[in-house]
Amino acid sequence: MKSDYKSTRKPKNIQYLRNSNRAEIIRRLATKGLISRTALASELQLTKMAISTIVTELIEEGFIEECGVINDTPAQQYSASSGRKATALTIPDYRINAIGIYILRYKIEGIAVDIKGTPIFSASTELPPGTDNARFTELLISLIEKIIYTNSHIAFSGIGIASIGPLDISGQIILNPPNFRKIENIRIGEIVREHFGLPVFLDNDMNAGALAEHLYGIAKEINDIVYLGLGSGVGAGIIVNGRMLHGSGGFAGEVGHMSIQIDGLPCSCGRKGCLEVYTNTIDLLRNTGAETIDELRETAMGENVPPTVRRCLDGYMRAVLSGLVTIANTFDPEAIIIGDNGAILVSLYLEQLEKEMNAQMFQRESRHIRLSVSSFGKTAPLIGAAAMVFEKIFSGEIPL
Amino acid sequence: MKSDYKSTRKPKNIQYLRNSNRAEIIRRLATKGLISRTALASELQLTKMAISTIVTELIEEGFIEECGVINDTPAQQYSASSGRKATALTIPDYRINAIGIYILRYKIEGIAVDIKGTPIFSASTELPPGTDNARFTELLISLIEKIIYTNSHIAFSGIGIASIGPLDISGQIILNPPNFRKIENIRIGEIVREHFGLPVFLDNDMNAGALAEHLYGIAKEINDIVYLGLGSGVGAGIIVNGRMLHGSGGFAGEVGHMSIQIDGLPCSCGRKGCLEVYTNTIDLLRNTGAETIDELRETAMGENVPPTVRRCLDGYMRAVLSGLVTIANTFDPEAIIIGDNGAILVSLYLEQLEKEMNAQMFQRESRHIRLSVSSFGKTAPLIGAAAMVFEKIFSGEIPL
Repeated sequence: MKSDYKSTRKPKNIQYLRNSNRAEIIRRLATKGLISRTALASELQLTKMAISTIVTELIEEGFIEECGVINDTPAQQYSASSGRKATALTIPDYRINAIGIYILRYKIEGIAVDIKGTPIFSASTELPPGTDNARFTELLISLIEKIIYTNSHIAFSGIGIASIGPLDISGQIILNPPNFRKIENIRIGEIVREHFGLPVFLDNDMNAGALAEHLYGIAKEINDIVYLGLGSGVGAGIIVNGRMLHGSGGFAGEVGHMSIQIDGLPCSCGRKGCLEVYTNTIDLLRNTGAETIDELRETAMGENVPPTVRRCLDGYMRAVLSGLVTIANTFDPEAIIIGDNGAILVSLYLEQLEKEMNAQMFQRESRHIRLSVSSFGKTAPLIGAAAMVFEKIFSGEIPL
Repeated sequence: MKSDYKSTRKPKNIQYLRNSNRAEIIRRLATKGLISRTALASELQLTKMAISTIVTELIEEGFIEECGVINDTPAQQYSASSGRKATALTIPDYRINAIGIYILRYKIEGIAVDIKGTPIFSASTELPPGTDNARFTELLISLIEKIIYTNSHIAFSGIGIASIGPLDISGQIILNPPNFRKIENIRIGEIVREHFGLPVFLDNDMNAGALAEHLYGIAKEINDIVYLGLGSGVGAGIIVNGRMLHGSGGFAGEVGHMSIQIDGLPCSCGRKGCLEVYTNTIDLLRNTGAETIDELRETAMGENVPPTVRRCLDGYMRAVLSGLVTIANTFDPEAIIIGDNGAILVSLYLEQLEKEMNAQMFQRESRHIRLSVSSFGKTAPLIGAAAMVFEKIFSGEIPL
């Protein structure tokens, strides 16, 4: 299977040049603070004249506005002698916006976000037992309509959808997720695009989580990250050289199905000893007798942790650590970010896990990998869904 | 540690446009067959006029020559009615060349290669016991001099060095490989660049192997591949979205140090159950009593394989398979290519391993991953070393 969701080759002509430079200016203004024309020219390594021309154009189109004055000296060159002021540029609030949709097993979440990462409005809808493709489509469309109509004063550039898998990303189809009501093989991209006439993007929830952190969260400006989602399933969204690792068919990042015990416990995927078997939160709750991760966290923080709970927690953290070290040795990311439900628990042991991972990984003398929990908690995939649209704007794939 | 060996940001101006289009034409001509101007315009999505201008320029500079006629119809549009002929373009033999150096534990190999991947000349030198940094430098320089002087009729665009690790890729330093005579912390990039005045590139042997396959071997035009080197050590060179996965500090791809048995045998890295423990060829030879992999292969192909050898082989292949499935689930590459010494043995079981990997991996209904052995055998890192220079030409980093 040859996938075509990868950006297709773009001709490198004057039009391409103009679009990429416009897009890079928008990216810079959206993901970082105010900046002057001079500093922008220096960051993008373009002449001031080139920058001025594009900025004027973007101001005329209303995508950029001037906004007070700032010190015009790039941070690195700051010295006592420099005090020149220059006009600051920004993107007007709510000028460029996207809708993010997060499809979970039992509900759909929706959000409106502006290109600077500010949430504007959110809503969600349950998927009642028995929901089939037709009902799912109705619920999804009415959720998106609600977001659009409630925010009729702003325009949306596109709709990003993060979903539980498996997906056909190239065909924008949700295939056959287990326990997903009566929904399967739903051509969600086609349905939403045809109904709303907006560009639609689909990716899995882990990749969306990684993108949220990369553009707006704790991993801003970091080009090599792994977002490790520890929930009822375990998987990763991986960004390499600043780009999402999709793999050849869109199935990369299934680190929950790397075996950490060649003859270990059987996994639902048919393999033995998969990381997910030892680190899924469903089994963890069942084995510890806790109702929720928050409750388990409370117990773990208490003075007298029952020995069975202690054993379960130790086993869980031992497996998480093994996964982390293998990820460190395989990807050498600058940071690993723990997301999903499990992060609530892992946050208790974060420092220790970071220390152990860095002590056990290969070539530990020469590097240090940061371990964090998600900036967005369980909403990372939802923010990331909207971010999928902005990513296409930043890369020039959706021209402004 | 922030690494700077990644290509630094290039200003997107007219000069950038010109260089990238020149570079892409050279890439196309170097890595694939003859092509006409019209087909080139179609492949690169540029106007015929733009292509003509650049081609004329490249012909005047002697980087391209006209070479007979070919059918002018792009393959996809081929039909009975089309028979127009057009002038074919090619790069003259030995017009653009590079030197590849492969540094192993006990010797240095060297090669001269032309940009179309044709080997021109090769030589090697032993590293006698007791070799220290000074002696190593002498031996390396005299090997490169030999290549240059023996081929004084051709020019070289640069020198690529593939080496055993660990490396500081950004600083172009070979750090402290185990059992590497008395050599350590050698600033090889600086030394070679200062002596020969050519651009010098350093990368690890696995990454070089992957690059050789990607540009000139079995993985041509495949953007997501894993080159898995099974030798005395085990590691991988990984190409994602058409670009090398270096990670944040240059230490990505250490898949030999992913644990496949959380409480398994101790590894020299300090962890337990690393893939390398079960798949290194040194232990395999020791445990089977064979002198060489070729001898072991002979035994394995024989009718009466001794039970102890059978057991060793089964254990080896089981561990290789576990590594392959985890790589499949993590990277979803289009192809996995087995290199280094172990490939000689693995080639016997290739079909079975491919079948098993595809049967065990996650989401197996929707994808198929090809398994191959290296096109270049043990010389893949050497060819890849020279290819490192060509890669920089193809990406426009070394302007022609």
